[in-house]
Amino acid sequence: MATPRLRWWAGSPWDHPTSSPEGIGASQGNPNLPPPTHRGVKSRDEPPPTPHALAHRGTPGPATSLIPRPGSGSERGAALPPALPSPGGAAGAAERPAAHTPWAAPTRRTAPAGTRDHPPAQTALRDRLLSAVVSCFKRHGAAAIDTPVLELRETLMGKYGEDTKLIYELQDQGGELLALRYDLTVPFARYLAMNKVTNMKRYHVAKVYRRDNPATTRGRYREFYQCDFDIAGQFDPMIPDAECLKIVHEILSDLQLGDFIIKVNDRRILNGVFAVCGVPESKFIPACSTVDKLDKVPWEEVRSEMVGEKGLSPEAADRIGEYVQLHGGLDLIERLLQDPKLSQNKLAKEGLGDMKLLFEYLTLFGITEKISFDLSLARGLDYYTGVIFEAVLLHQENEHVEEAVSVGSVAGGGRYDGLVGMFDPKGRKVPCVGVSIGIERIFSILEQRLEASGEKLRTTETQVLVATPQKHLLPARLKLISELWDAGIKAEMLYKKDPKLLKQLQYCEDTGIPLAAIVGEQELADRVVKLRDVATREQVDIPREKLIDEIRRRLEP
Amino acid sequence: MATPRLRWWAGSPWDHPTSSPEGIGASQGNPNLPPPTHRGVKSRDEPPPTPHALAHRGTPGPATSLIPRPGSGSERGAALPPALPSPGGAAGAAERPAAHTPWAAPTRRTAPAGTRDHPPAQTALRDRLLSAVVSCFKRHGAAAIDTPVLELRETLMGKYGEDTKLIYELQDQGGELLALRYDLTVPFARYLAMNKVTNMKRYHVAKVYRRDNPATTRGRYREFYQCDFDIAGQFDPMIPDAECLKIVHEILSDLQLGDFIIKVNDRRILNGVFAVCGVPESKFIPACSTVDKLDKVPWEEVRSEMVGEKGLSPEAADRIGEYVQLHGGLDLIERLLQDPKLSQNKLAKEGLGDMKLLFEYLTLFGITEKISFDLSLARGLDYYTGVIFEAVLLHQENEHVEEAVSVGSVAGGGRYDGLVGMFDPKGRKVPCVGVSIGIERIFSILEQRLEASGEKLRTTETQVLVATPQKHLLPARLKLISELWDAGIKAEMLYKKDPKLLKQLQYCEDTGIPLAAIVGEQELADRVVKLRDVATREQVDIPREKLIDEIRRRLEP
Repeated sequence: MATPRLRWWAGSPWDHPTSSPEGIGASQGNPNLPPPTHRGVKSRDEPPPTPHALAHRGTPGPATSLIPRPGSGSERGAALPPALPSPGGAAGAAERPAAHTPWAAPTRRTAPAGTRDHPPAQTALRDRLLSAVVSCFKRHGAAAIDTPVLELRETLMGKYGEDTKLIYELQDQGGELLALRYDLTVPFARYLAMNKVTNMKRYHVAKVYRRDNPATTRGRYREFYQCDFDIAGQFDPMIPDAECLKIVHEILSDLQLGDFIIKVNDRRILNGVFAVCGVPESKFIPACSTVDKLDKVPWEEVRSEMVGEKGLSPEAADRIGEYVQLHGGLDLIERLLQDPKLSQNKLAKEGLGDMKLLFEYLTLFGITEKISFDLSLARGLDYYTGVIFEAVLLHQENEHVEEAVSVGSVAGGGRYDGLVGMFDPKGRKVPCVGVSIGIERIFSILEQRLEASGEKLRTTETQVLVATPQKHLLPARLKLISELWDAGIKAEMLYKKDPKLLKQLQYCEDTGIPLAAIVGEQELADRVVKLRDVATREQVDIPREKLIDEIRRRLEP
Repeated sequence: MATPRLRWWAGSPWDHPTSSPEGIGASQGNPNLPPPTHRGVKSRDEPPPTPHALAHRGTPGPATSLIPRPGSGSERGAALPPALPSPGGAAGAAERPAAHTPWAAPTRRTAPAGTRDHPPAQTALRDRLLSAVVSCFKRHGAAAIDTPVLELRETLMGKYGEDTKLIYELQDQGGELLALRYDLTVPFARYLAMNKVTNMKRYHVAKVYRRDNPATTRGRYREFYQCDFDIAGQFDPMIPDAECLKIVHEILSDLQLGDFIIKVNDRRILNGVFAVCGVPESKFIPACSTVDKLDKVPWEEVRSEMVGEKGLSPEAADRIGEYVQLHGGLDLIERLLQDPKLSQNKLAKEGLGDMKLLFEYLTLFGITEKISFDLSLARGLDYYTGVIFEAVLLHQENEHVEEAVSVGSVAGGGRYDGLVGMFDPKGRKVPCVGVSIGIERIFSILEQRLEASGEKLRTTETQVLVATPQKHLLPARLKLISELWDAGIKAEMLYKKDPKLLKQLQYCEDTGIPLAAIVGEQELADRVVKLRDVATREQVDIPREKLIDEIRRRLEP
């Protein structure tokens, strides 16, 4: 019923999907393995990070395997520029000597390992993707906030479990001890507490930083985007939680990434399972992080880690195994509500009751088909207190992959009712639930797909090239282009005094500019401009005073 | 001639400029003194930064004087939350203990000194401002790129003169030595060299970091946005340079910030002046940075710094004084071209010839009225090699200030032909010219103006609130809102099972939602929805199947 929402590319600011020869570069090292986001992305096959990042100074990290610019040749795996023997000088014979440099080494021309530059073609694709995600967040009434990349170290400490070691710390240069944010959730909680906000629906799209090991985790970045939507406030149960799942469903449907499933569980149910299986409360968190591996390794391995590393009894592990391998829908919830052991546990009963309510709401939203109540879903972070969820693509739309295998998670989130209270001097709580979209993984998929399709994205929006067919007409071009700019028309010209007409028209074709406005001696004498349709090559003289209107008319969708 | 460009707010995504009670908070400490951007903003009255940032751990910096949220009370000058005596624990009684924290202190709820959170009202205003600036950059055919916030330390060293001490360095945690970017220009130069790009028109809007002293420089931030547009490539003289000035003119006109002037000079002219006045070449840069202070202090002070601190002869200083106090237009250029001393200097002659050409092009653009060739303009940074410029507002539109006094620079830039070569192993140069818009200062002005006008910006874009007038109708609301979302309509509902109708309608008025879609028992029975215009309070029954179309019709501009 009703007209479907505009597809994600339809709302993009590109008015003219022309075939521009500006290429999307080759894809990165291993685009199947984008970085994990705190709540969003978890690689299926990434090795656990080693405790210390290898020293990789002087070796090109992933950052040097940048997407090459068309015509620039691939830099992938290229050796570093040779060290020049000029002590104290900058690399190369720069006109202005680097008089103040306190460094003896020549300036290397690389970005830090684990980070990337985004050239125009990537930035254009990324901007479209981000604007599709943001437009969904806005459709659900969220406001935007912005918080600093820098946080006090103590703000971040004790919030991320073992991942605390991945936090980038700034040098103590006198003043506060600072760190780079690890995610957007902890800063949001700090923001709420600091401003005494008890009620807010916000989104935040920004970069986060993790000192992960780029040498062992190819394709895992140290700087990457997160797209978060969160609802803070004391409300009736499961209404905001259901909306978060609806948002994941909308975004993944709109982006047409292929079939997906959203796994749902509740930390209270999981803790209830541990309790009735005889796990002492002190071991809930370690047991939880072991269960979390069930989507990567078979139960036998998880079981042996529980018994060996985590010190659970074999009987407890076996009992846990019976539960955490279950998944289903409303029927499973009903069955577990009747489970003689589990139904006796207060936490589990609460969680199951809410899960039932959640499924009711999701039924009204018409999205239960894509929802799986999955007792193996645990999520790594400490701060979750209730519902947790994670969306996985079932298979990637790709000619080479026919099997319906999961390619990893693309969104995730859950309820964290205790985090804001950690920042409040009186411990006042603000219940929160939120979702993070795994934008880096989705970006990789779209980039691969775009590359496979041969379709090119324009990187600029220029509508008209102002051109001249003879020499000595730069003043005419400058005058005309100035009129177009002042009328709000997107216009370019070549920065040469006397460019050849062919070169100017070739530039239009190369960059997808749809129109050329040509002023020659004859046109100046006749007070007209020759307006040329670059695709059809038709051109017609337009009276100078009607030019703006004619261009606008032609550019109408 | 031609319709004027749309004004900057016209292109914003807010369709309904309703009077929302979501307030813009009180303005910050001293909004007249936003931070300097490398090429854009220079405060008229900021003291030079002291060599070392004061230790301000434990004292609330400017970050605590956040714009308060409505109803939350001002946090300005508030003391830190009392230190809780719970050692090792998080502040407050959080449900989930911070088991992993290695810190003994309770979690403070502040952002780092010199940084700010942006609440929704600020973020909405900032987004509009940035989108106005970006739309100008796109009008001129620029593509976007993105580079990391992290750079190798050695990339940044030796590029910023004395300001190198303001660079934030990361802790050496094993691996590369990293720093936070100081501006967007040096990363752009690194990007060009690293990717062997010799030709590019790009814009970049992103945050940069300066370890400035927030204790002595109120309103100067350590994290702030820069908006840069740059043209790289070997082109005919002054054509890209003229476009940069046209861009500044367009942006400042579009934003309607009041009267402004763009000062223009050329480093070659300045160096020529120093040469003919008898300054040894080794003292060009120190002399330049002293001249740069002429917009803040009178000539006598500049002169005494030249003679005292910089060791110039009194005669040289006096001769310099005769030149650097000159400003004018084409007439002044012609006069200096005839100057018996200056016309003998090769550099100065080149610079003056190009300046003449620049004025020709600016005449064709019709903007010379706002351009002043000003020999006192020097610009602080080392990397400029040719044309330099800086835009200043002549007076702020403000009832309280009637005088036409300069309120500081809001944009700046220039030509830097040697910077890219510093990153190339063979020293290959890529000439560049660019401009940076001083977005933080402009933001402060707009914020003040908005506050003075009493006008409120909406922070969300919600079009319809889905409401129910009786109890037990949550399922009806969930079903209807889901239909609206799926049709791409921006819709909200209250997260309560049985909210009062009055509360729901009040929410519309509070947040500027123009329509309410109400389903009660009668409407369900009649298969209609009551559509209410929140402003006029008129409501009418719409058949359910026609609702989406009717909402769309009403929301049309």
